[in-house]
Amino acid sequence: MPSPADNDLRPIWLDPATGDVNVIDQRGLPHDLVILQLQTVADTVYAIREMVVRGAPLIGITGAYGVYLALRNAAAASDPAAVLETECRRLREARPTAVNLAWAVNRVRGALPPGGDRAARMRAAAEEAGRIAAEEAENCRLIGVHGLALIEALGRRRDGRPVNILTHCNAGWLATIAHGTATAPIYAAHRQGIPVHVWVDETRPLNQGARLTAWELARGGVPHTVITDNAGGHLMQHGQVDLVIVGTDRTTASGDVANKIGTYLKALAARDNGVPFYVALPSSTFDWGMDDGLQEIPIEERDPDEVRFVQGRGAEGVVSVLVAPASSPAANFAFDVTPSRLVTGFITERGVCPASAEGIRSLFPERIPGGSTSGD
Amino acid sequence: MPSPADNDLRPIWLDPATGDVNVIDQRGLPHDLVILQLQTVADTVYAIREMVVRGAPLIGITGAYGVYLALRNAAAASDPAAVLETECRRLREARPTAVNLAWAVNRVRGALPPGGDRAARMRAAAEEAGRIAAEEAENCRLIGVHGLALIEALGRRRDGRPVNILTHCNAGWLATIAHGTATAPIYAAHRQGIPVHVWVDETRPLNQGARLTAWELARGGVPHTVITDNAGGHLMQHGQVDLVIVGTDRTTASGDVANKIGTYLKALAARDNGVPFYVALPSSTFDWGMDDGLQEIPIEERDPDEVRFVQGRGAEGVVSVLVAPASSPAANFAFDVTPSRLVTGFITERGVCPASAEGIRSLFPERIPGGSTSGD
Repeated sequence: MPSPADNDLRPIWLDPATGDVNVIDQRGLPHDLVILQLQTVADTVYAIREMVVRGAPLIGITGAYGVYLALRNAAAASDPAAVLETECRRLREARPTAVNLAWAVNRVRGALPPGGDRAARMRAAAEEAGRIAAEEAENCRLIGVHGLALIEALGRRRDGRPVNILTHCNAGWLATIAHGTATAPIYAAHRQGIPVHVWVDETRPLNQGARLTAWELARGGVPHTVITDNAGGHLMQHGQVDLVIVGTDRTTASGDVANKIGTYLKALAARDNGVPFYVALPSSTFDWGMDDGLQEIPIEERDPDEVRFVQGRGAEGVVSVLVAPASSPAANFAFDVTPSRLVTGFITERGVCPASAEGIRSLFPERIPGGSTSGD
Repeated sequence: MPSPADNDLRPIWLDPATGDVNVIDQRGLPHDLVILQLQTVADTVYAIREMVVRGAPLIGITGAYGVYLALRNAAAASDPAAVLETECRRLREARPTAVNLAWAVNRVRGALPPGGDRAARMRAAAEEAGRIAAEEAENCRLIGVHGLALIEALGRRRDGRPVNILTHCNAGWLATIAHGTATAPIYAAHRQGIPVHVWVDETRPLNQGARLTAWELARGGVPHTVITDNAGGHLMQHGQVDLVIVGTDRTTASGDVANKIGTYLKALAARDNGVPFYVALPSSTFDWGMDDGLQEIPIEERDPDEVRFVQGRGAEGVVSVLVAPASSPAANFAFDVTPSRLVTGFITERGVCPASAEGIRSLFPERIPGGSTSGD
């Protein structure tokens, strides 16, 4: 497991003493910092589904460790191979939108030595999960390096005034393993002494912006302001946003981006106001087999009570309060798809590229071979 | 004071027994229905500023009754005329964005008989405020008549399936005096037996959609679903929205629309998906002296704690809970401006017109005389 730069906390780690997988329970933040121990696949599925952990890269890493937990608990099974297949499927199906989950589970599954040596297979699973985590951390570091150049260029034009960056949801180190994706260039700029200020979309319904991104930025000493999801368009109309950077849960080979619900609205506003709109992602978040994001990416629909209720800290501690009338139904779509035409570019571990099949191919030629465009 | 159709409740009324102005305290809805008595200009300014009452037409009507309260309390003043001027200015300045407020205060002020007969002046003020309320109710009824035709036309194409209408904030009878503006066509269609379903944007930070519009629609038996402000774009991308109708706090003579923050984002999504985007307003909400909404309309910035905290019903009653880290700042812009180019049309008491100086002039030739366009 890598040591995250500038940060003594990680969202997940394998505890060598217990063999459990420890995670920060992100539902309690920013008010309570609670660590949960995952001991079984059921624990892992619960953690992913209930958003104890969230964010595409971290969901992938958690699923990877879930394969290790599946092996640890498969001792008594009469048909360990069949059990492992079932457990891997349960892990892959814990959430439908993030492509990293199936990718990471399959990668660990494929790295297991054949045969019946359970200890060797457990060790291989843990090592492969650790490798995925280390690679994702390094990918995020490189996203920071490449994205930093964009902020530096804007900073030169700002003549000492802070570069105003808007982000939606949390694509910070809490969503990855270190650095974050959307936040990696921001942290890199802040470390370099380039003045930055972040507009943090609160990101209803679960407020990952107000709760998690604001907490991360406050902890890192990065100037920021929490705003409602409604406010970004107004700020862009008035020249208050120099750059938008968001993460993604799945990106097609043609450049369509599934990300937290509401991302599409910010992309429209950025386009309408000439504000650059970048998506930061490790290449594990590309779904190389998909072309049409709107038609093909499954959009998770979650419990409507996540909309009807809001969690926060009251006089008696952290509670959920009902906002809407008790009799009013709600709907809770977790993601939307931003078409590639609205995306200025991708910030990946290999560099920055246009949001198109050609652009992506220029950085990842081995993943999109062919010479023709995605329209074929 | 008119009797609102299909509704035994009004958001404001003059109590003949006490001479007080009674209002529903909209801050308590949907959980508590509390009536406040306004007895002074200070009470009235508080009610407007703290959003006991809100919505452009209702703010205007409340300001109108405020002039009556100013006269009622001016008995002991040594210079009643000067006091009245001061009190009218306090009323006009209670909130900056809704144009109806200054319009209504000035109209009542202008309707007072000259001279020192305080009783006659109080009576004239109450009567003029009542006339404004009655006219606004009738205007809203007519908005319903004209908007109904739009919904009927969409309903014919839906072949029995409900017409899906998205609205932002609350432009219902709570925001006016009866019928509402954006809701008037919806209530009219529902009464006619045309199946409608309303997507209710929760409308952070103060959740006027989830709290007030949902409460109104539930009370009126209109099918509806509460969604986050982030969700509308996704719904439009997937053909789940047939029509957007919103209200407005101020609309320029060229058709730019100031409305609750986030309206602009929905207008962008409607344009991107070919969904008709209508703004419903009584003509009192036009600011005939303004052309460029983005440059000229003052946008109120409210207490950041409205963003950092959310109010709802917990186990111990209605409470406010802190969502963001205690140390994170927030910003709270209350409105944004939707440029006329994104608006399909206006639904007014005189009919439906395009969102342009020419369109508005076609319905209100006495207000925009000249023959040339707003670009001059």
